[in-house]
Amino acid sequence: MGKLILFPNSLAEDISADTFSAEMVKKIASIDGLIVESEKRARKFLKCFSFTEDRTFRDIPLVTLNEHTQDLSELTGPLKKGETWGLISDGGLPCLADPGANLVARLLAEDVKIEAMPGPSSFLHTLMLSGFPAQSFAFHGYFPKDKNNRKEFIQTILRRSEKENAPQLFIEAPYRSHHRFEELLEILSENVYLCIGADIMMQTEFVKTARISDWRKNAKPNLKKRPTVFILYTPPQSRKKAYLRG
Amino acid sequence: MGKLILFPNSLAEDISADTFSAEMVKKIASIDGLIVESEKRARKFLKCFSFTEDRTFRDIPLVTLNEHTQDLSELTGPLKKGETWGLISDGGLPCLADPGANLVARLLAEDVKIEAMPGPSSFLHTLMLSGFPAQSFAFHGYFPKDKNNRKEFIQTILRRSEKENAPQLFIEAPYRSHHRFEELLEILSENVYLCIGADIMMQTEFVKTARISDWRKNAKPNLKKRPTVFILYTPPQSRKKAYLRG
Repeated sequence: MGKLILFPNSLAEDISADTFSAEMVKKIASIDGLIVESEKRARKFLKCFSFTEDRTFRDIPLVTLNEHTQDLSELTGPLKKGETWGLISDGGLPCLADPGANLVARLLAEDVKIEAMPGPSSFLHTLMLSGFPAQSFAFHGYFPKDKNNRKEFIQTILRRSEKENAPQLFIEAPYRSHHRFEELLEILSENVYLCIGADIMMQTEFVKTARISDWRKNAKPNLKKRPTVFILYTPPQSRKKAYLRG
Repeated sequence: MGKLILFPNSLAEDISADTFSAEMVKKIASIDGLIVESEKRARKFLKCFSFTEDRTFRDIPLVTLNEHTQDLSELTGPLKKGETWGLISDGGLPCLADPGANLVARLLAEDVKIEAMPGPSSFLHTLMLSGFPAQSFAFHGYFPKDKNNRKEFIQTILRRSEKENAPQLFIEAPYRSHHRFEELLEILSENVYLCIGADIMMQTEFVKTARISDWRKNAKPNLKKRPTVFILYTPPQSRKKAYLRG
């Protein structure tokens, strides 16, 4: 039986091997192929590394796995024949908010060995820098698409945030970040805390936590075309006075 | 103004610089001091690195931050004077389920610059290897201590798991892992899926996903004294038949 290794990808535009561990650089060298979210980003990733047996990054076979992939057998075949393949997403850790999890579930059922390497997660990174308590938290992926559903869902999870003292995390596609931010400032009540994490792990990284009332009063970041993490948090009543001097 | 850098620590007993990025190794070299969860584990961490100005790992000042720390001013003082300090927990990423978040919140209010480096998270690692869908999930830290509260809380979050298609993550201290596992096998209904992640990122790493009915039937891992991640998941009705051939 072969093996699938889940590798992190860089969150930055320019990918550098310096941001990965020596252990990972070594493991990448021996893969027989790579399962990828998009070919362009994958070649950029592979270009950082050296490979065994006089291979260059151009010699590593790529197979695409994305939301359009119907048949997983092209991906599982080489693994069942004993090969070692890697899996990456376009940025950060695979199998979180991308179709990698379906493949892992399938391989588990077929007893293929799977291992994972640590790496950057834009939402955990933002959570660590938010200053919010993180004994517990919830990650919701993208916001609901329908405006009414979205409003209702946000009200539900804010009640949960207050009851369970748990920040509520969302990610948003670059082209929607700006609108989502404007909308949140409009619909959230002024005592809700909002942390914005934009361009995480890039030169232009921006992370800021403030109450809605303060976001409204002060200069706002331009989030146009920037991948953004949104964290909403309502401190429990008992903690409200103490929290962030709010 | 100084700077606080949030560094990941290794999850393994023996810490090796090979598991960290070249970028992090470089940043560690220049810190003026380190805020730590425990001194013993921190010295083990520092021993892996080289430092600027003929310093060895023994020359780096340590200050402890744990659940007993009352006064944060000893920690914030050097940062306000312009020094660069690091912050680590005993394993994995700091500020998640440890008191680092209080310090970050305090420093944000005082405009001290904070940055973070990526690294291993035992619960994200287990989630990636679980095969569960992870478009959304919730992390609850440790299980509630009181048995009745615990049972009730688990029932609540399992309903939520089914409704929102979201795995529910917990961690447990090594000395409680075994008992918790036994208890979960006893109280969960047979169609709930349970993923166990023990000794994550160690040589003895163990990750397995199965339905409760299958966990009961088959040989069980010995979790005594092993740090363990527990992920509970009830697939929504519509997905039940397809999921993991369950």
